[in-house]
Amino acid sequence: MSKTDKLKARQPRGFVDRGPADVAATERMLSVIRESFSLYGFDPVETPFVEYTDALGKFLPDQDRPNEGVFSFQDDDEQWLSLRYDLTAPLARYVAENFDALPKPYRSYRAGYVFRNEKPGPGRFRQFMQFDADIVGSGTVAADAEICMLAADTMERLGIKRGDYVVKVNNRKVLDGVMDAAGIDQAARLAVLRAIDKADKFPLAEVGKLLGEGRKDESGDFTKGAGLTSVQADTILRYLELGQKLAELGKSTAADGARAAELSAEAVAELGKLVESAENGRSGIEELEQIRKLVTAAGYLGRIIIDPSVVRGLEYYTGPVYEVELTFPVTNEDGQVVRFGSVAGGGRYDGLVGRFRPEPVPATGFSIGVSRLYSALKAVKSPIVDQKAELPLVVVTAMDNKSPEFMPGYQAMVSQLRQAKDEDGKPLLRADLYLGSSGFNAQMKYADRRGAVCAVIQGSSERDAGTVVIKDLILGAELAAAGREVKDSAEHKARQAEAQFSLPAAELVEGVKKVLLRHARACPDHPRLP
Amino acid sequence: MSKTDKLKARQPRGFVDRGPADVAATERMLSVIRESFSLYGFDPVETPFVEYTDALGKFLPDQDRPNEGVFSFQDDDEQWLSLRYDLTAPLARYVAENFDALPKPYRSYRAGYVFRNEKPGPGRFRQFMQFDADIVGSGTVAADAEICMLAADTMERLGIKRGDYVVKVNNRKVLDGVMDAAGIDQAARLAVLRAIDKADKFPLAEVGKLLGEGRKDESGDFTKGAGLTSVQADTILRYLELGQKLAELGKSTAADGARAAELSAEAVAELGKLVESAENGRSGIEELEQIRKLVTAAGYLGRIIIDPSVVRGLEYYTGPVYEVELTFPVTNEDGQVVRFGSVAGGGRYDGLVGRFRPEPVPATGFSIGVSRLYSALKAVKSPIVDQKAELPLVVVTAMDNKSPEFMPGYQAMVSQLRQAKDEDGKPLLRADLYLGSSGFNAQMKYADRRGAVCAVIQGSSERDAGTVVIKDLILGAELAAAGREVKDSAEHKARQAEAQFSLPAAELVEGVKKVLLRHARACPDHPRLP
Repeated sequence: MSKTDKLKARQPRGFVDRGPADVAATERMLSVIRESFSLYGFDPVETPFVEYTDALGKFLPDQDRPNEGVFSFQDDDEQWLSLRYDLTAPLARYVAENFDALPKPYRSYRAGYVFRNEKPGPGRFRQFMQFDADIVGSGTVAADAEICMLAADTMERLGIKRGDYVVKVNNRKVLDGVMDAAGIDQAARLAVLRAIDKADKFPLAEVGKLLGEGRKDESGDFTKGAGLTSVQADTILRYLELGQKLAELGKSTAADGARAAELSAEAVAELGKLVESAENGRSGIEELEQIRKLVTAAGYLGRIIIDPSVVRGLEYYTGPVYEVELTFPVTNEDGQVVRFGSVAGGGRYDGLVGRFRPEPVPATGFSIGVSRLYSALKAVKSPIVDQKAELPLVVVTAMDNKSPEFMPGYQAMVSQLRQAKDEDGKPLLRADLYLGSSGFNAQMKYADRRGAVCAVIQGSSERDAGTVVIKDLILGAELAAAGREVKDSAEHKARQAEAQFSLPAAELVEGVKKVLLRHARACPDHPRLP
Repeated sequence: MSKTDKLKARQPRGFVDRGPADVAATERMLSVIRESFSLYGFDPVETPFVEYTDALGKFLPDQDRPNEGVFSFQDDDEQWLSLRYDLTAPLARYVAENFDALPKPYRSYRAGYVFRNEKPGPGRFRQFMQFDADIVGSGTVAADAEICMLAADTMERLGIKRGDYVVKVNNRKVLDGVMDAAGIDQAARLAVLRAIDKADKFPLAEVGKLLGEGRKDESGDFTKGAGLTSVQADTILRYLELGQKLAELGKSTAADGARAAELSAEAVAELGKLVESAENGRSGIEELEQIRKLVTAAGYLGRIIIDPSVVRGLEYYTGPVYEVELTFPVTNEDGQVVRFGSVAGGGRYDGLVGRFRPEPVPATGFSIGVSRLYSALKAVKSPIVDQKAELPLVVVTAMDNKSPEFMPGYQAMVSQLRQAKDEDGKPLLRADLYLGSSGFNAQMKYADRRGAVCAVIQGSSERDAGTVVIKDLILGAELAAAGREVKDSAEHKARQAEAQFSLPAAELVEGVKKVLLRHARACPDHPRLP
């Protein structure tokens, strides 16, 4: 193949690689979430990446083809298969398929990548990870309350402080009830939900414009409104106003519990009046009230709040919906200080398992957006993503790598180092043998680039004398950076002797331990040390 | 939707779900492998599931379509994308794309599912997990030796005893050299390699038939042979004979190191004579000899052996190839006692990264078949897949679940239990609140089915008295199984009082701790206890 025929190494749009720090920190984060879910009695389950397209509900019968938003291909028997686009539809298939064998209600969790065949953009990927927990086979709102509490506990376990997050709960039935009560056409409802969804970003007056004719933003772009009458729009705005009051009250209850709980009950009652002409609205309010009582009894008041502005997509939710919002400020791409925002959400989806089963199967659950949560943990410097999990690295150089007969000697050194243990019998370090063909200077650069704490060196004179040289790369870098007058001092020379020293080859492991200990003591936070 | 319109819940062929025990044990296994690879200085990297088909080398230019063995779909710009079918091709793309930013040689590991669009069968899936480690940018066989030692160490860390595994090494160049020396046509070589691949299953006389006209097995099925002349076949058989001698010697060196090492060097020399007329053969022998010296110096003699029967597929290997075989006996589906067999393999693939780069980029690496290794660990009862990792489960029943006003009380109990900690501040138990709508008997069955150690019960009389009842399900089951005469004894009645007792609601956590401790002491191996 000639040079010009070379393939270009590139990734499809919307897919990304992840490097070592990312992979290790995400792994730690996932294991904390797993433990958190497990304490609530949830068991892991794993479904494959590929499902029948119709089982995912992504088959468009009128077009005889899968929805274009999912990656699909035909099996050799012509049936359509798709990559899963979330973890909920596959769970519904799994539960329906194993219905009799599972304990019910069935609590389960699972983490994994999902795929969307959509246009990628900043922060929007075509492959991303979700971590879900669901309770299938429970129709009571106590299950929704459990999920909300699980969400709150999980945030705290991950290092997000109380007050830095809030779990906001709403109910689809209340939303529907308000729209029924206001006599809003089915056709306009999508636009109304979109406007409601903006209530945590815009003042209510701006939301009002979106409910009516439309809204022009600062840049002059016009968003067409839902076209409600002013009476209809006022009902929605009144609903949102009460909602904001409830949300504020919910948050303040940490300070004055009894009084705020009372006010909160009053506000829910007022919300009830708005929807009293609609049966689904009344039932939705009753459910919210029940959730409020449950989380209060369990000590989650102020961490889980009723917030009628929560909408959560438009697809399969049938009752309570919830969202985990991180409330601490961050600076966005435009330099504005904003709340971090949503990292997880979910709700009740009573119809999904029932698509496969003769009996109705109620279910509720939530989904964490793993990479979004990972950014959040980095923003609050959570020890879970911040800590150094790796052991220190030692690089054995191969000064005589041009002569194959000397490689076994270097190999024996690195093997010895890998067997070094601490007092508890745990591995003490990671050890790497330089296996390239470059000369000694390039090897030292390699050790440095890999972040090694020290390098082990043996040339012909050391080999003849039965010794090795250990070079402390951290101390060495410090000394190299010192000024001229310092370099002439006796102390500097003494430290240079510490930074690079020779010792009998048989004492290699002891010598390396000495260097590791030196830095573990002197600078426990040094990025090269555990 | 009418009942008859219901979707069928089913999985595409060749894909499987995995339950809680499987998921948890695999997770533990993966974390041991990760640690093992990390100690050798390998860093994690993760590439996406989807790649350009041409980057995977799976595009058939003569047909203008992807190879049918991979799952493929077209992007909206008409370019072909595929699910990765191994972890090596994506790594080659990754290294080529990030070449200047990576330290070289580049050591990395990664685990993940790969996909094959093939006919599934027993033990053959269309989605399965691999765990790979590779060194890219090193042309020395010291890198191949490192991978073999890493493979050996990893087996031991996973609980596979020394002597129960062997890493077998061969070299493609030696194979090619033997075939060159014997004057075997390119056209016949595939069949010859297939015959060689059978040398660990059949006696050499049977392999001889496969090299010649063909072989009829016990069932009468005929396999067409490679059609070699008897002189050619004898060269191959002589090669295999020497190989078996080498392999035996390699294994025996634990007993008489010096003598066996000497004999082994002699046998390699004899092998050298067989290929001395072919340049690639001579170079291959030299490389094997170098690997033998390296692993001997590092103390792996007898664990890593030269075995000329190793073939390892046919695709991209260019030098040393290696295979990890588990040697302990298992009974196969046909009731025969056989060696467990191969769980990992790999080799040098110097051409793969170079497809993308102007410069040649040598590389070597290996891949563990995760589910196959998992079966092996179960077979040897490795503590890694055998241990109970989960905390004990407590189920809070909801006797009055028909009345929503009592649910907050049950919710408060389960929340309290979830906060129970041991002396080190670690969680003590998993707690589950029954959230179904069934009556009390079904709730007790649920607790049993979930494997709970105890159930917490509060009906109206307990609530009025401010108490709860704790039912010890393990002791309860034991007592229920006792014979009639035992049941009348005073001791039995005393134990019944222990198996179900009432206490003030405020002492719930203490009471549950008492039951957990009882069983942790009495039967540490009980499946319900950690």
